[in-house]
Amino acid sequence: MTPIQKVIRFIFSIFFGSIGLQCFALDGLVQKQTFEMPSYQTIGGKTIKNLKVGFETYGTLNAKGDNAIMVCHFFSGNSHAAGKYKDSDAAPGYWDSIIGPGKPYDTEKYFIIASDSLVNLGANDPSVVTTGPASINPDTGKPYAMSFPIVTIQDFVRVQKALADKLGVKKLAAVTGASMGSLQTVEWAAMFPDMVERIIPVIPGGLEAGAFLIEEAQIWANPILSDPNWNGGNYYDKADKPLKGLQQSLQVVTINSRNPGWSERTFSRNWSVAGKNPLDDWQNTFAIVEGIERASVARAKIADANHFLYLVRANQLFRVGNANSVEEGIKPIKAKALFIPASSDQLLLPEYSKRAVALLKKQGNAAEYVEIPGDGGHIDGITDIAKVGEQIKAFLNR
Amino acid sequence: MTPIQKVIRFIFSIFFGSIGLQCFALDGLVQKQTFEMPSYQTIGGKTIKNLKVGFETYGTLNAKGDNAIMVCHFFSGNSHAAGKYKDSDAAPGYWDSIIGPGKPYDTEKYFIIASDSLVNLGANDPSVVTTGPASINPDTGKPYAMSFPIVTIQDFVRVQKALADKLGVKKLAAVTGASMGSLQTVEWAAMFPDMVERIIPVIPGGLEAGAFLIEEAQIWANPILSDPNWNGGNYYDKADKPLKGLQQSLQVVTINSRNPGWSERTFSRNWSVAGKNPLDDWQNTFAIVEGIERASVARAKIADANHFLYLVRANQLFRVGNANSVEEGIKPIKAKALFIPASSDQLLLPEYSKRAVALLKKQGNAAEYVEIPGDGGHIDGITDIAKVGEQIKAFLNR
Repeated sequence: MTPIQKVIRFIFSIFFGSIGLQCFALDGLVQKQTFEMPSYQTIGGKTIKNLKVGFETYGTLNAKGDNAIMVCHFFSGNSHAAGKYKDSDAAPGYWDSIIGPGKPYDTEKYFIIASDSLVNLGANDPSVVTTGPASINPDTGKPYAMSFPIVTIQDFVRVQKALADKLGVKKLAAVTGASMGSLQTVEWAAMFPDMVERIIPVIPGGLEAGAFLIEEAQIWANPILSDPNWNGGNYYDKADKPLKGLQQSLQVVTINSRNPGWSERTFSRNWSVAGKNPLDDWQNTFAIVEGIERASVARAKIADANHFLYLVRANQLFRVGNANSVEEGIKPIKAKALFIPASSDQLLLPEYSKRAVALLKKQGNAAEYVEIPGDGGHIDGITDIAKVGEQIKAFLNR
Repeated sequence: MTPIQKVIRFIFSIFFGSIGLQCFALDGLVQKQTFEMPSYQTIGGKTIKNLKVGFETYGTLNAKGDNAIMVCHFFSGNSHAAGKYKDSDAAPGYWDSIIGPGKPYDTEKYFIIASDSLVNLGANDPSVVTTGPASINPDTGKPYAMSFPIVTIQDFVRVQKALADKLGVKKLAAVTGASMGSLQTVEWAAMFPDMVERIIPVIPGGLEAGAFLIEEAQIWANPILSDPNWNGGNYYDKADKPLKGLQQSLQVVTINSRNPGWSERTFSRNWSVAGKNPLDDWQNTFAIVEGIERASVARAKIADANHFLYLVRANQLFRVGNANSVEEGIKPIKAKALFIPASSDQLLLPEYSKRAVALLKKQGNAAEYVEIPGDGGHIDGITDIAKVGEQIKAFLNR
């Protein structure tokens, strides 16, 4: 492993834990493709020209076009859900443990689609294709910055629908996604009820962003907003980017996605440098502070601050079906549902899933609930998803 | 109620909830007094000259000096635990619901002492007396800023001990405190085991700050550290203070101290201004975002950014007895213990208390556990403490 690969693996392990790097099992390598729409009208009534998002597919669409599964990614994720781009990649896609031949999302049976969202966080990641504030506005020849239309989870889903149509998909055997992906998942069922047979929201946010989640997301955004280099979003032509704010925003995301068990196992109360007691000097600090900061510095390099803000707003605005109430929003849903929270999740609490399942059952839907056991926190929905692989497999056969 | 009182009550209600303003019941009014030490040597081996902290007492010390109860305050709190300074005060002290004649901390029976901590957050609050980075260093005639010695929870307790001695206290029937006050509470039992008969840690942090809590506290501090006006802590003679960073730090504290139930009841998904949909414009926002920001702006005016950082470090450094392990740290403890977490606390989790109780029992101590029911989050330890009033009363009689 090269030093750069080691660094990438370290960063990856901070954000996603040590998921089995050895378990790459897709036949051959995967590749990013690009889906384009000449023009797209947002839920908010604005037009985005030359919209582009990246996507990956695993497996083969059958003749009837009804064996597809759509995978929607989390806040800091992208469409690289499984496999490797090249053999030397430090890690496969984030859900490689459940996507592949013979795995719960069996690529010998299903045609799996994963797409980059609009305003994807990794605007500077060479393997991400997205359209957002960092993109060039064709009308001005300059980056949109904060003039890019505010977009919603509903917009993400409508773009995915256009992609699915283009690929010839007639039915989705399932839509799934973790965290922010779970919001897209339930939205799919509400917006296109005749196309979606099952939904599998993982570490779910429930059916809307409640007041608490709205404020938590604002706390994520605040470091960017107060970085002088953010400059109202106009930094694309400046030498100084709002990297520090972005780093701090990423640190809040990280701690919100973890919990005491993981923190204690990984860092304990160790100092960042042996012999340098934080009691003695302000320069001295703790291992966890240094570790999470170091990961955020690397991570910020491939992310974009304005994209972060747009993602925050999209999450804050979410209510299923964009309706006046969740009860109204879920009315169209026909899909069977399996909600999969993580037991130790302190960000998107298991109680959000319990409430969603109860509401769906109340209106007569088939809705099930299973927890991912563990003490890793929210991120268990990525790192430990294979623990509920059998339940996913069984649900797909119901 | 004057407009200013209304504003204070609003701010108070954001941070502490709507605690019964009508239930003031101490005989007469309370007053802040000042305790001074000409010189104090810190755990870290540094000297603080002319140390001053404020304190309040409720009730009367008996002739044997053994009916005292020490009340240690939380991160953003101070020694105003009960009563009012004047009849027109918008609200009484934060635990007025359990301190007073006939209440669990019965002022007809006990002599209750509450003191401002060192490096108290409210350095600019006229009712707080504290010594910290905002204080004048007698050797230079200028504020210490970040040259003030790093202090620990142990230091807070040693200063309280000196105060108790001065007041003639021989035995503490109990030491109690919420949140950061709970750390001081267990430290009292470890440091002065022959003086402390009972400890009642409320919304407790357990026996040490674990890695997760260390990082959470760092996330609180980060907005201050990245505010250009913080300027390495040297802002006392500057026109521009790091108010924005301090406000954002306070916002993180607030959301960490709350939970979904409270947020939903108080703000729901309302917009901050009717008709101004956050989908339409970046200037539009949600009621909870505006409400918590407004409270933090007011709150920051009486707080000090450097003091905030010193409190963060004191919390991060905490392990009971300043020992090599919690097992070693609790060895001296003789006091009976009653740990009182809040069921819905998402900051200092009930599991921290369970672990502490288990460790104390393991070494043969009498240790009990009772939860404050509710859905307000961490802050239930302040607002809803009266719910476990009977259990506190019974414990004091055991």
